[in-house]
Amino acid sequence: MDNARLIPSAQNLQPLKYYIVDYDKRESVFPYLKWAGYLTDWNGPVEGERPAAYIIILSDTEISKNVKYDHGIAAQTILLGAVSKEMGGCIIATVNRDALVQTLQIPSQYTIELVIALGHPKENVIIKEIDKNGDIKYYRDNEGNHYVPKRKLDDIIITR
Amino acid sequence: MDNARLIPSAQNLQPLKYYIVDYDKRESVFPYLKWAGYLTDWNGPVEGERPAAYIIILSDTEISKNVKYDHGIAAQTILLGAVSKEMGGCIIATVNRDALVQTLQIPSQYTIELVIALGHPKENVIIKEIDKNGDIKYYRDNEGNHYVPKRKLDDIIITR
Repeated sequence: MDNARLIPSAQNLQPLKYYIVDYDKRESVFPYLKWAGYLTDWNGPVEGERPAAYIIILSDTEISKNVKYDHGIAAQTILLGAVSKEMGGCIIATVNRDALVQTLQIPSQYTIELVIALGHPKENVIIKEIDKNGDIKYYRDNEGNHYVPKRKLDDIIITR
Repeated sequence: MDNARLIPSAQNLQPLKYYIVDYDKRESVFPYLKWAGYLTDWNGPVEGERPAAYIIILSDTEISKNVKYDHGIAAQTILLGAVSKEMGGCIIATVNRDALVQTLQIPSQYTIELVIALGHPKENVIIKEIDKNGDIKYYRDNEGNHYVPKRKLDDIIITR
């Protein structure tokens, strides 16, 4: 969390606030998240594989009503910090925000921007180069490997 | 740049592309950026103190017209990489996009999201806790120190 405190912020306004959901309260968040849209035969992690904790990234509308970059910066900073401590995580944007606000009684001054799920990874994530067919969908094999196709460096640099 | 290639991306779409402006072309970008809004007596870095290079973060509208988080994630990832190599940088959002598109002849398929300025820092950046008056404006002294007030950890965690 202290890493997130130090991130660059547009106009240094620092509109982000954080709601930490620890192990005891984790089941109050899980039902309101949508998991891995491309894995259509998977309904999300089963009991025992679910995230151990969450950090909910909120914007404080009394400071800014128009957060454009701070939330992405914060999310990546928190995740890199988690991975440096041998945890894993996921940035989740598909959230039933109304239900989560109600369940956690988050005051109306705050807007839910993103939810960070944290835990110790069960899967082995393997980054591979995107195939010639250009398919960016991630997929799994039967041995606990989760493959994520990423574009080649040549394909993302367009300098002429 | 390879760090940016590996970042998490919404639906793994990877809509971001990068235009690298190296030392020789740096003066073609500088006029279109706005610097440090709170330092009203400063018109931006003078010749010799200006960034050595830029990375322009673009979104490819043929992949996504609605980038919400990827650009912030990319910008912070690139900056952390730069700092790990003893460079410094700044994420700049106040950009004359139309003029920059025209100058660099960036195809209309791309939208400028952010500009990352890179170089070797001249100033000493000091992070301090925000004062009781709550002022978030950064400021300088006469000895090359640039102070950035950040909120206290207690003030950004709102868990009840």
